[in-house]
Amino acid sequence: MTVSSNRVAVVGAGQTAFGVLPHAPRSLLRQALLEAVASVDKGISPSDVGEGYLATLGFGGWQIGNPATLLAEEMGRPGIPVTHVENACASGSTGLRAAYHALRAGSCDVAVVAGLEKMTDDPSPRRRFWLGVSGETEWERLAGLTFAGVYALLAERYLSERKLTPEVLGAVAVKNHAHGALNPHAHLRKPITLEKHRDAPPVADPLKLYDCCPVSDGAAAVLLAREEVARRFTDSPIWIDGSGGGSDFLALQDRPSLTSLAASRFAADQAFAHAPFPREKVQFAEVHDCFTIAELLALEDTGLLPKGEAPSATMEGRTRLGGALPINPSGGLKAKGHPLGATGVGQVCEIYHQLRGEAGPRQVPGAERALAHNVGGSGATAMVHVFSR
Amino acid sequence: MTVSSNRVAVVGAGQTAFGVLPHAPRSLLRQALLEAVASVDKGISPSDVGEGYLATLGFGGWQIGNPATLLAEEMGRPGIPVTHVENACASGSTGLRAAYHALRAGSCDVAVVAGLEKMTDDPSPRRRFWLGVSGETEWERLAGLTFAGVYALLAERYLSERKLTPEVLGAVAVKNHAHGALNPHAHLRKPITLEKHRDAPPVADPLKLYDCCPVSDGAAAVLLAREEVARRFTDSPIWIDGSGGGSDFLALQDRPSLTSLAASRFAADQAFAHAPFPREKVQFAEVHDCFTIAELLALEDTGLLPKGEAPSATMEGRTRLGGALPINPSGGLKAKGHPLGATGVGQVCEIYHQLRGEAGPRQVPGAERALAHNVGGSGATAMVHVFSR
Repeated sequence: MTVSSNRVAVVGAGQTAFGVLPHAPRSLLRQALLEAVASVDKGISPSDVGEGYLATLGFGGWQIGNPATLLAEEMGRPGIPVTHVENACASGSTGLRAAYHALRAGSCDVAVVAGLEKMTDDPSPRRRFWLGVSGETEWERLAGLTFAGVYALLAERYLSERKLTPEVLGAVAVKNHAHGALNPHAHLRKPITLEKHRDAPPVADPLKLYDCCPVSDGAAAVLLAREEVARRFTDSPIWIDGSGGGSDFLALQDRPSLTSLAASRFAADQAFAHAPFPREKVQFAEVHDCFTIAELLALEDTGLLPKGEAPSATMEGRTRLGGALPINPSGGLKAKGHPLGATGVGQVCEIYHQLRGEAGPRQVPGAERALAHNVGGSGATAMVHVFSR
Repeated sequence: MTVSSNRVAVVGAGQTAFGVLPHAPRSLLRQALLEAVASVDKGISPSDVGEGYLATLGFGGWQIGNPATLLAEEMGRPGIPVTHVENACASGSTGLRAAYHALRAGSCDVAVVAGLEKMTDDPSPRRRFWLGVSGETEWERLAGLTFAGVYALLAERYLSERKLTPEVLGAVAVKNHAHGALNPHAHLRKPITLEKHRDAPPVADPLKLYDCCPVSDGAAAVLLAREEVARRFTDSPIWIDGSGGGSDFLALQDRPSLTSLAASRFAADQAFAHAPFPREKVQFAEVHDCFTIAELLALEDTGLLPKGEAPSATMEGRTRLGGALPINPSGGLKAKGHPLGATGVGQVCEIYHQLRGEAGPRQVPGAERALAHNVGGSGATAMVHVFSR
């Protein structure tokens, strides 16, 4: 008998630029899907697509319920099963995981995952309260904490426990701004200096302006296929070698530590439990740096660096393009931008092009294995995926 | 070599009563989870649960983003991967499908699916606009259409094309109220008469008060297991024999027909493509009757009855308890209630107890095979699952 494989490949990936965009949500979605379809080496037809997953928080309330059906419409496949997933800022990777499950379960041969957020046309007083879409409502939001404030608490504790100055946060910002400047899809394409970071206005002490990701619009989409059919679409598929998820208490007050996100640790452990290679073989990663502190947390929580090494690795340039372990070659959430539901899917777009050697001036030379790490809120949910070419 | 099965079983199911409940969303969730855990014949430990899916629209905005982590917290399993799914009123069955995929994909051995909605404490002006959470926003809601109005358009067309009077809608209402009166978990436990239905105030012509489901609070939870481990928890598992999903254009204006929901047809076709028995073998069903017209649509769209037979079958009592094909023995959304995210999971609770012969005065005698049908909005999404004992 033939035992069928249940490996899953990425066979296409596309995204809008991230930034302040004039387009309606549906138009952003359409553009990302068109880019993904156009990217498929041997072509793909809408009729090949058997199921869809849409990741969005529906920021601004443009379509609060049932938005997934718009994915089927814009994909040219009204009728297919579609699912709207939401795990705050980890929605995109959550959609990826759900599609990966559907393919491995044998429900379809090809699935589409799209992420979407339209944020910049929301009135600014509502934007200030975005903790309500990502953090804990009952205690944190109603106590007046902002979302930057949540990460400021993590940063304050981290710097204090490790006896560091905010300069290490600046090193993350300078690096990711430098990477973003090389990415035509990035929201912020301007390099900054450590001085500019240091002298910027405070947002929530110790976080200053350049420690925070921008508020972005954008959409991203990837096409996934079971191994049996993947080579119908491309001779250079990118494999999803492992998928892991984790969770944690929603409110910071309930967690034992503020200097590590347990959800990220669980997610990475689960992803590598399935992956055919260990952490040490990962050559670059896209990690969740909604605030600079988050990148430092991610590096150790995923096990890409040993506990305690993230600050020194960052200061020494090891996580820069050209360093031993480039982190966020796309510019990350910090500079590429963070349209919530699109972010985790956009990370896969970057990895897809990097592993295929298509990343232009920000290419990680010879990249064969990569990791994507995506966090929901302040770490109540997290997903990690591992890829290879 | 051993080829492992990837059948999925329901090994536990529990829910709150549906109705106007004083409890907070988190408390409702906890109560449903405790009921589900308590229902497991041989017991289950939180540590057995490997992944969780929470279905909710977050009605009222109590926790707009990242609510899935509360499932992990209340399950006593902070740390496990959790996912929030939303497909309007089909969210519950969408969660079921996602968990079914995760189990068949081999990501875990046991998963929990919970559905939750807290609706009655929302101010009534906002409730009137609930189309925004289920129907199409840009054209339908902004044109002033209510959600009952959407289904009234379907009903008007149905009655007109088939040359029927609203009495057939009344027959659905009378039947489901009679069933609900037998269900201690039902929101509306009072039988009604055809006269009472006829003389009730109009809501959206031709729909009157008793054509509409109530606005309910409630939560429901089911525990699913891979076949390899299912008998550790019970000697009487209920099998999920098929899962299907479908979609359609979000706005009614884009659809070719108003007297059939294409999403339901696609979902049923997909579910039975995998099921080991044909439609004719289904002995009873829980179908989505948010308005009485919806039950008539469901009977033919799922193929449980041939095209054209739903009205006569209903008028003749064939869909009543005691009839040849009992529909909505629980009372359905119409009488059991419709706490949006909980509804599709609550349908599985009813089927679980019916197939185990535990449904008391509303038991379908000798029931071995059943179907659950759950619609999102006015049919933009739908899921169908098939079960056997």
